[in-house]
Amino acid sequence: MWYCLRMQRWWIDTSSEVEDSIVRRILSLAAGSDIISFAGGLPSAAHFPVREVGEVLESLAREPALVRKALQYGETEGYRPLREIIAESYQRKDGLPIQPEQVGITTGSQQAIYLLARALGQRPVVVERPTYLAALAAFRLAGNGIREIPLPEDGPEAGGLPDVEEGMCYAVPNFQNPTGITWSNEKREVVARWAKQRSILLVEDDPYGELRFRGARQKPLAAFAPAHTILLGSFSKILAPGMRVGWFVVPQEGEQLFAKLRSLKETADLHTSTFAQVVIAEYYRRGFAQAHIEAVAAVYGKRARLMRELLAEHLLEVRCTDPEGGMFLWATLPEGMRARELFHLALEEGVAFVPGDVFYATEPDERTFRLNFTAVDEAEMEEGVRRLARAYARARRGT
Amino acid sequence: MWYCLRMQRWWIDTSSEVEDSIVRRILSLAAGSDIISFAGGLPSAAHFPVREVGEVLESLAREPALVRKALQYGETEGYRPLREIIAESYQRKDGLPIQPEQVGITTGSQQAIYLLARALGQRPVVVERPTYLAALAAFRLAGNGIREIPLPEDGPEAGGLPDVEEGMCYAVPNFQNPTGITWSNEKREVVARWAKQRSILLVEDDPYGELRFRGARQKPLAAFAPAHTILLGSFSKILAPGMRVGWFVVPQEGEQLFAKLRSLKETADLHTSTFAQVVIAEYYRRGFAQAHIEAVAAVYGKRARLMRELLAEHLLEVRCTDPEGGMFLWATLPEGMRARELFHLALEEGVAFVPGDVFYATEPDERTFRLNFTAVDEAEMEEGVRRLARAYARARRGT
Repeated sequence: MWYCLRMQRWWIDTSSEVEDSIVRRILSLAAGSDIISFAGGLPSAAHFPVREVGEVLESLAREPALVRKALQYGETEGYRPLREIIAESYQRKDGLPIQPEQVGITTGSQQAIYLLARALGQRPVVVERPTYLAALAAFRLAGNGIREIPLPEDGPEAGGLPDVEEGMCYAVPNFQNPTGITWSNEKREVVARWAKQRSILLVEDDPYGELRFRGARQKPLAAFAPAHTILLGSFSKILAPGMRVGWFVVPQEGEQLFAKLRSLKETADLHTSTFAQVVIAEYYRRGFAQAHIEAVAAVYGKRARLMRELLAEHLLEVRCTDPEGGMFLWATLPEGMRARELFHLALEEGVAFVPGDVFYATEPDERTFRLNFTAVDEAEMEEGVRRLARAYARARRGT
Repeated sequence: MWYCLRMQRWWIDTSSEVEDSIVRRILSLAAGSDIISFAGGLPSAAHFPVREVGEVLESLAREPALVRKALQYGETEGYRPLREIIAESYQRKDGLPIQPEQVGITTGSQQAIYLLARALGQRPVVVERPTYLAALAAFRLAGNGIREIPLPEDGPEAGGLPDVEEGMCYAVPNFQNPTGITWSNEKREVVARWAKQRSILLVEDDPYGELRFRGARQKPLAAFAPAHTILLGSFSKILAPGMRVGWFVVPQEGEQLFAKLRSLKETADLHTSTFAQVVIAEYYRRGFAQAHIEAVAAVYGKRARLMRELLAEHLLEVRCTDPEGGMFLWATLPEGMRARELFHLALEEGVAFVPGDVFYATEPDERTFRLNFTAVDEAEMEEGVRRLARAYARARRGT
């Protein structure tokens, strides 16, 4: 009889709650092959501050007391000097009166999204249409009810905001992933007013905000609705993703939310790598951060312009957004074409992107796709768009 | 009307799903004060391999290509060279035919427990009585049904194992946290047989296994029930906890379980710090690991002996376990006394420990408490036990 039971070991055919990530599959497919990838969300490794990080490591090697601290358990809420650096940055750049006590360090901002999804419980979450793929995965896993709002090129309209009484609104108002869209100040005010009239927590995810290459820095949502906004940030795009260090900033009177997120995080991983936090804090203390951010934003700006030029030259019928910063632009195929079909032909031609359907919580727009313009250099980009144009021509002909 | 709604912002009085951790409160209480703490689970910072890590950092600073890799996004399953190091170590030390593909890197082994709790869903989890506090928190948060098995000093008896058909059994067979108990080979076989006759996944959590200071290394549960055991390990106790790098090893035919855990992890934090993983892999590649482990185990052995001698001298009526390794011993007060009462008097006298009740899933034994013998040096330990003896005398007198 127990032979029979042995056949039924539950972990042998356990189903994945979240679908095996298409992005992961594409990334592992593209890695090491000669496929030019516009698919990932990778920053340009060529522009990592390798020399500056090397200097930090060398000086750290000469400070045994600091190494000792970096090696020990730390507090769940994060390394205090790093929390101070983050709070000070909001004060200086946005005039927000953020205190270090409002800042909690997370294992990438993905973890902050995940913890918020858990904290939200059965309440609904409102997201842009389309929105960040891994946020959708977190909301689905937590069983949150997901509501979409349309996303015009300057941010959501008042008429698009649902009449829910309580819940969360997750948004990426600067150079959104996947669209590259930035909300105007007017739209920020509209959404802030909507949240303030309800029991809605705005989750302002801003991993790309510093990577602006044209136009003026916008006021954060947190400036319009300070008591209703939790800010999320990350060092992934302004320093390096391999650190896996992000943060959240709870709103005023947010002590209970802070305590809840800290408690959930403690159960999830105790705390984020002290070692990585100390290295980042030292990097900032040495003043390396700002110059690097400006250099990277300049490079990304050049690449974004080049990609738009190349698309205009080789793929005139494809409409695309015109981002002011960040890492992505959003393309839409002419009526009757489907991005999934183009995707398979593009892989055959040796170029990858992400079909847009994965970024929708409900019925997708199947003509859309996301292009990353930061991970490949100019020469590869030209070759990649040429390959894309060949795939497009084949899709047009239906071959 | 919306003023009324504003008063009800859900995140203002959100309740914590998990009780605000007593350990965290004690740690922050003890930190920076002159309280001698036997409470935490901190390794001895004085014995961290600071010089060796410094050497790794210096050499890393001279390898820009490796720094670049350390700074980039990595695969969710972990940094391949580190997975190879872990697999090779099981092959060499335990003769287990572990392949790197079975190894998944986690943000501390706490994350592995958390992900397993999520993967388990509504199935029951069987735990030792008492068991590791933060594992209990993860099982409670995930809503797993928890069953306890009694824990005699050489491991669970056949008669104590519940007649459940499927689920998980979470255990720390070497120098358990909190008791310091090690399962005998006979008991390992008993539990393995029980699991193999059922759809039970054994979760063999072994963060302390390398920290043996007397007796012979035992065969892992995974050697008795290879198709039924998922191994958990961590660099926290054999290198440094501040890295936050642990791992799981899925059983044979465990591809589906691996895929599920990877998928859950991807949603939780994408992947563990590449930076920390690269530093650890370099530390191992330079051959620093084994000498450090042996040195630390020797220090901990001396401290464990000293603590037992001091307890025998000053607290003769308190019974305690005699660990062969690890970081903790487990004390039991005489009939009629309660560890919580002693705890409060002890804090007044300037010494801390963890009352045992928090380590029970059900009705606690209120006479028990946990003592850590690794975080304080010999002089502090003597003073700490003297303070404990004063608190004990007061508790005896009822003052």
